[in-house]
Amino acid sequence: MTHHRDRTQVAIIGGGPAGLLLSHILSENGIDSVVLEQRTKDYVLSRIRAGLLETGTVQLLRDYGLAERMDKNGKSKKGSWITRQGFPSHFIDTHKWTGKEMMVYGQTDITEDLYDAREQAGGNIINEAADVTLHDVTADAPYVTYMKNGQSHHLDCDYIAGCDGFHGVSRKTIPADILRTYERAYPFGWLGIMAEVPPLPDLVYAYHERGFALASQRNRLLSRYYIQCPLTDSVMDWSDERFWEELLARFPAEVASEIVTGPSIEKSIAPLRSFVAEPMQYGRMFLAGDAAHIVPPTGAKGLNLAASDVFYLSRGLIEQIKSNRSTHLERYSELALRRVWSSENFSWRMTQLMHVFPEMNGFDAKIQQNSYELLLQNETQQRALAEEYVGLPFEELDALTLSAA
Amino acid sequence: MTHHRDRTQVAIIGGGPAGLLLSHILSENGIDSVVLEQRTKDYVLSRIRAGLLETGTVQLLRDYGLAERMDKNGKSKKGSWITRQGFPSHFIDTHKWTGKEMMVYGQTDITEDLYDAREQAGGNIINEAADVTLHDVTADAPYVTYMKNGQSHHLDCDYIAGCDGFHGVSRKTIPADILRTYERAYPFGWLGIMAEVPPLPDLVYAYHERGFALASQRNRLLSRYYIQCPLTDSVMDWSDERFWEELLARFPAEVASEIVTGPSIEKSIAPLRSFVAEPMQYGRMFLAGDAAHIVPPTGAKGLNLAASDVFYLSRGLIEQIKSNRSTHLERYSELALRRVWSSENFSWRMTQLMHVFPEMNGFDAKIQQNSYELLLQNETQQRALAEEYVGLPFEELDALTLSAA
Repeated sequence: MTHHRDRTQVAIIGGGPAGLLLSHILSENGIDSVVLEQRTKDYVLSRIRAGLLETGTVQLLRDYGLAERMDKNGKSKKGSWITRQGFPSHFIDTHKWTGKEMMVYGQTDITEDLYDAREQAGGNIINEAADVTLHDVTADAPYVTYMKNGQSHHLDCDYIAGCDGFHGVSRKTIPADILRTYERAYPFGWLGIMAEVPPLPDLVYAYHERGFALASQRNRLLSRYYIQCPLTDSVMDWSDERFWEELLARFPAEVASEIVTGPSIEKSIAPLRSFVAEPMQYGRMFLAGDAAHIVPPTGAKGLNLAASDVFYLSRGLIEQIKSNRSTHLERYSELALRRVWSSENFSWRMTQLMHVFPEMNGFDAKIQQNSYELLLQNETQQRALAEEYVGLPFEELDALTLSAA
Repeated sequence: MTHHRDRTQVAIIGGGPAGLLLSHILSENGIDSVVLEQRTKDYVLSRIRAGLLETGTVQLLRDYGLAERMDKNGKSKKGSWITRQGFPSHFIDTHKWTGKEMMVYGQTDITEDLYDAREQAGGNIINEAADVTLHDVTADAPYVTYMKNGQSHHLDCDYIAGCDGFHGVSRKTIPADILRTYERAYPFGWLGIMAEVPPLPDLVYAYHERGFALASQRNRLLSRYYIQCPLTDSVMDWSDERFWEELLARFPAEVASEIVTGPSIEKSIAPLRSFVAEPMQYGRMFLAGDAAHIVPPTGAKGLNLAASDVFYLSRGLIEQIKSNRSTHLERYSELALRRVWSSENFSWRMTQLMHVFPEMNGFDAKIQQNSYELLLQNETQQRALAEEYVGLPFEELDALTLSAA
């Protein structure tokens, strides 16, 4: 068995949006990295995820020359709709309340753009890297081993970025007596379908007594719809016909009448989960994105949190590697986690507001309804939600954390 | 046994602040009422309750000439403090965010003022009315019977106002198949003491890992302090010494150092409860105040909700009796409940934010902490809390409900 030995400054585990974005930003700053991805490029690009981008994410992509296709094909968003039986539909006017822009642009497209950018710059992305293992992460000279095409590889590096998602190996490198995890499971999932029909122009969130529903869009001819369903359901229980019937019932008539139905090209049930691992760094290994935290999709924060993690991590690495200053890298976990918890909090509250929880008693359900009414009535509540929805500024949280030190 | 028969337009069950205020407002509008109170006047005045008055309550008292002593002896409030270990103390500047005034003026003082006003106007308040029973409340001619000094009384009336508190008879008049109740019990209570020492100048709410604490004031020389304690505790477990030691530990050092301790003159443990009964009207009987709903004291909403109920109910009764229009009286329950649920919601969220809940897991506790951080960092969140704390305007909610019809 041949044994290959290579060296890079930053070994990046995982070739999803977090890993590729980090690699790109490091490269733009003259720092070398290798991305190790266990799947094929096609597989990575086939993963269907939401793509509602916070202002900070949009800005980060623009700052690093990654926005050309996004600005051409993405859809600038001024807000989203919320609906609930018995109440008029309400537009959460994020642009009015914050002056800030959001963008709908699919995660698949972003990943493609990132692949293109890395490939153009001669970036080193190794797909189908198997048995990835992290070594000596608390020593001065960590390294990563993996198998590729039946050959073993040894990659020396200065730092390791764990961008390998919830099921990845990076987080597991942190010893059990150091790693703390925080979790909430939800007693329901989202049944989602993709259909080649024109979507509604905006995101529409619906609360219905039988459960949540969401209308979202991938592009002009591709719609993504979701309904809350019991975790015990299987996609076999849901014919297209039954899905559309239930979906339309969960939206107010004026919304339902605008929905174009059609055969599904994909159908799946995803459980909802809130999860945070702390700390996000261990020795010379740093977690980013889903490797460290999962949010329920209601708040559309998953991809945006990956982007903000990469913002904080790339800044720390650049400062450390180029200027030998450790200020931000040493405190990466603390800086990133403040934003992580803000997004976890928002995602939890949005989920709580818009879903039917089987365990809720009558009092809880009335409080849920009053929170919805309060939001519709009170402009300050609308502004507060809008500020969280467009995303808290990276630097502001930063300044707070640093000044508290 | 002598049998007395009398007649009034509105029979008011309960001589606490709700009943007395309603009687006063009706009287000012030329409507006759009789207040039936099972306790003595001294007993009613000895009940110790908080006295943080919302803007709407202050205005209502002023509008009806009840504010002379409040404006002289009460303390105008620009806000309250919140504290939490590891965070700087924060002033919730309600005046800055809303331009509105709150007032600290004890419930005992308000009740005294109301008694004085009713007595000056020759109002009919019958104390020590026993065995109060409501009759024919769904008929055109309801009446109330009661015993006083061993004699039985029969009071004919057009309407009945149930202002007799959580344990009163009025709510029980609503048949079980019509009455819906909503409830949340809390796994802790408030241990409160009263001491004749100068209080802190402002209300200070404290979150501490061992539980909530609150510094409040009755007047310049009378302090009221509370700490969260298990429901299984008894006042016998808490010597003054132990209480003060624990109280001081729950506040940040700069707050604790300002607290003047001294022997307690009262000590009690009160459970926390959220409770709402719907509907608040049945036939010609209308519930107001604690008879229909209980809030945990964290939000200081109990007395204020009684005042807003009385605002809605008095308006409906005046309109009905003087103009024979039923618009507001018919919809009293609906109009009052919108504000009730807003206050229940706020009281629940304030309680949730500031208390230690034994059942919270690590994730919940982190979300609680992040909500606190968000409040400290984000001015929109501060404004939103301030608006709820000073109280939502009576008429605004009114307009919304009526327009939705």
